[in-house]
Amino acid sequence: MGKTRLEAFSDGVIAIIITIMVLEMKVPHGEQLDTLMPLAPVFFCYVLSFVYVGIYWNNHHHMLHACSRVTGGVLWANLHLLFWLSLFPFTTGWMGENHFAPLPTAVYGAVLLCAAIAYFILQQAIIRAQGAGSVLKAAVGRDWKGTLSTALYLAAALLAFIHPWIAIALYALVALMWFIPDPRIARVVEGDAQH
Amino acid sequence: MGKTRLEAFSDGVIAIIITIMVLEMKVPHGEQLDTLMPLAPVFFCYVLSFVYVGIYWNNHHHMLHACSRVTGGVLWANLHLLFWLSLFPFTTGWMGENHFAPLPTAVYGAVLLCAAIAYFILQQAIIRAQGAGSVLKAAVGRDWKGTLSTALYLAAALLAFIHPWIAIALYALVALMWFIPDPRIARVVEGDAQH
Amino acid sequence: MGKTRLEAFSDGVIAIIITIMVLEMKVPHGEQLDTLMPLAPVFFCYVLSFVYVGIYWNNHHHMLHACSRVTGGVLWANLHLLFWLSLFPFTTGWMGENHFAPLPTAVYGAVLLCAAIAYFILQQAIIRAQGAGSVLKAAVGRDWKGTLSTALYLAAALLAFIHPWIAIALYALVALMWFIPDPRIARVVEGDAQH
Amino acid sequence: MGKTRLEAFSDGVIAIIITIMVLEMKVPHGEQLDTLMPLAPVFFCYVLSFVYVGIYWNNHHHMLHACSRVTGGVLWANLHLLFWLSLFPFTTGWMGENHFAPLPTAVYGAVLLCAAIAYFILQQAIIRAQGAGSVLKAAVGRDWKGTLSTALYLAAALLAFIHPWIAIALYALVALMWFIPDPRIARVVEGDAQH
Repeated sequence: MGKTRLEAFSDGVIAIIITIMVLEMKVPHGEQLDTLMPLAPVFFCYVLSFVYVGIYWNNHHHMLHACSRVTGGVLWANLHLLFWLSLFPFTTGWMGENHFAPLPTAVYGAVLLCAAIAYFILQQAIIRAQGAGSVLKAAVGRDWKGTLSTALYLAAALLAFIHPWIAIALYALVALMWFIPDPRIARVVEGDAQH
Repeated sequence: MGKTRLEAFSDGVIAIIITIMVLEMKVPHGEQLDTLMPLAPVFFCYVLSFVYVGIYWNNHHHMLHACSRVTGGVLWANLHLLFWLSLFPFTTGWMGENHFAPLPTAVYGAVLLCAAIAYFILQQAIIRAQGAGSVLKAAVGRDWKGTLSTALYLAAALLAFIHPWIAIALYALVALMWFIPDPRIARVVEGDAQH
Repeated sequence: MGKTRLEAFSDGVIAIIITIMVLEMKVPHGEQLDTLMPLAPVFFCYVLSFVYVGIYWNNHHHMLHACSRVTGGVLWANLHLLFWLSLFPFTTGWMGENHFAPLPTAVYGAVLLCAAIAYFILQQAIIRAQGAGSVLKAAVGRDWKGTLSTALYLAAALLAFIHPWIAIALYALVALMWFIPDPRIARVVEGDAQH
Repeated sequence: MGKTRLEAFSDGVIAIIITIMVLEMKVPHGEQLDTLMPLAPVFFCYVLSFVYVGIYWNNHHHMLHACSRVTGGVLWANLHLLFWLSLFPFTTGWMGENHFAPLPTAVYGAVLLCAAIAYFILQQAIIRAQGAGSVLKAAVGRDWKGTLSTALYLAAALLAFIHPWIAIALYALVALMWFIPDPRIARVVEGDAQH
């Protein structure tokens, strides 16, 4: 079973998610600057989530590049990841509309956490499908970046109740950490292609 | 006539359906937990429908894999299936917003029933297009799974008026039953490829 | 310049158009049958427009199949067609919400008319790009079907002011007439492939 | 790393942007001509933005045609461009709903300006990825068209506060200027293919 349609479907869903998030930024009923100002936090949340979805698309792109065989398990693990990503517009809108109140900010992190776990599950499903000598397994290694992100999302979701801006700072930090596509996979895949 | 564009178009429509369903889960106007609570049934319905659309995409993927020739009949049978799937966001939203009231729950099942029938018609159209010695026909066999689902959707839609939770349980049961991609098609296609 | 991306982009836009039309069918605030009833005309309009968009996708599919060279003119003629198709959700929603009042019914027809003209322009652009011995030109011939539809849309848009149901009947008639994919193109293309 | 998925994802996002803009044109609650009239400026803005998104898709199409190697930098430069394009539905809706008031008209231009800068950055990223002897670099040359547009967007955004129609006229002028796909790239790419 080919991976072309899996990629195409994922691209479609991710493209829609990244675009409908902007619909939460409702057109204001007024033409003055003060009608635009309340949208500032919504806009900030949109930027943050746009970067996150971009990171997921980017890493998904890299990971599937290293995937040669699609099984039923991979299909469902992929849908599971898309499910959590599909909640981003909701949590983004809720956090932005309530100006980073503790609960919405924590829920935003909880969904990030679930997406990170879903990404890890998908990674494992692909490694399992590849069997022994998995290129992806070698590429990912001990995956400290994934583990660290997961821990930071959890910490941020809890710290949001102390002060939401601690959570926001952590979300921004993790985004920054993932901004660059994972060089490990690229390196091992290239190395593999040379032998 | 190639099937690439048929697959691409179907992927596009299914990707949009699965994503706009989340738009029915409106961002609440409040930051407390009690503003989130009324969304619980809507969220549950979203999860159920997400799984259903995922199942349809998955099976559609498998079925078209076994399809080599696209006729006008196949194109329209496919659009007919997409039509019923496109009603999922509506019935999902209606059932969730009314906390599983009898009528919305029954209508949800009626649309599931119509989608199942449309899927059957598409299957027949592909088999007809393949002519004698159809791989898909051999793969599908007596199709007890499809027949059983259809019967269960019908039963659930009627039983919703006695108690909606009977219907919900049946919808969840059928989803569970289809969760795993159909091994019959995969087996016969693989067998066919080996000869 | 390849036509793959033109097809992919058109498929994307048409897939979104066909799916967001359903968003005009707002989830009612009630669980009884009488809250669903006012949606009946909206549902009918959705079905009609779904069939129309399906027909356009289908014919677009066939026409581009007979197209080998994409020029700047073809790209813009295609975007022009997509523009008129993108107004379908609006006119469908307006006609349905106003229960087939004269003006919305006439505007619905006017947009159908513009889409038909845009389709004709795209057809001419492709024929021009193919140069002498155009396969599409031979396939389309005198195009009585396109001309007749255009005339019927114009008549329907005007007759809507006498009685909207005359217009609706004509819209349904034209849809029926186009339901089957154009055999002329298929025949000539196949004939061409055999020589 | 292939560019197929980059193109597919961009096509998806642009297709959604161009289509959801129409959702800002809300179906009016009335069947008379006077309920349609207030939508005239919204419709005009929709047409203008549709043409702009069409131009971006068209030029993006050409530019990626001349791109053979996708790096991480190109991926992010592309996402950056898509970010600014994703704000078009918002600025279009805001400008249209406020009948070309100064501030919304200026903000519309500011987002056009950011998109133009993002396009320039993407162009540079592709040229950098191609290294010495870049086909795109030769094709683009001194890029007076891009520079002029950027200057005109800036001028328009500022002049909107003197009179919005000056800005609108400039937006229309730049759209007209870009309407035809860039012949420079096509010419150099073709020339390159002949050697």
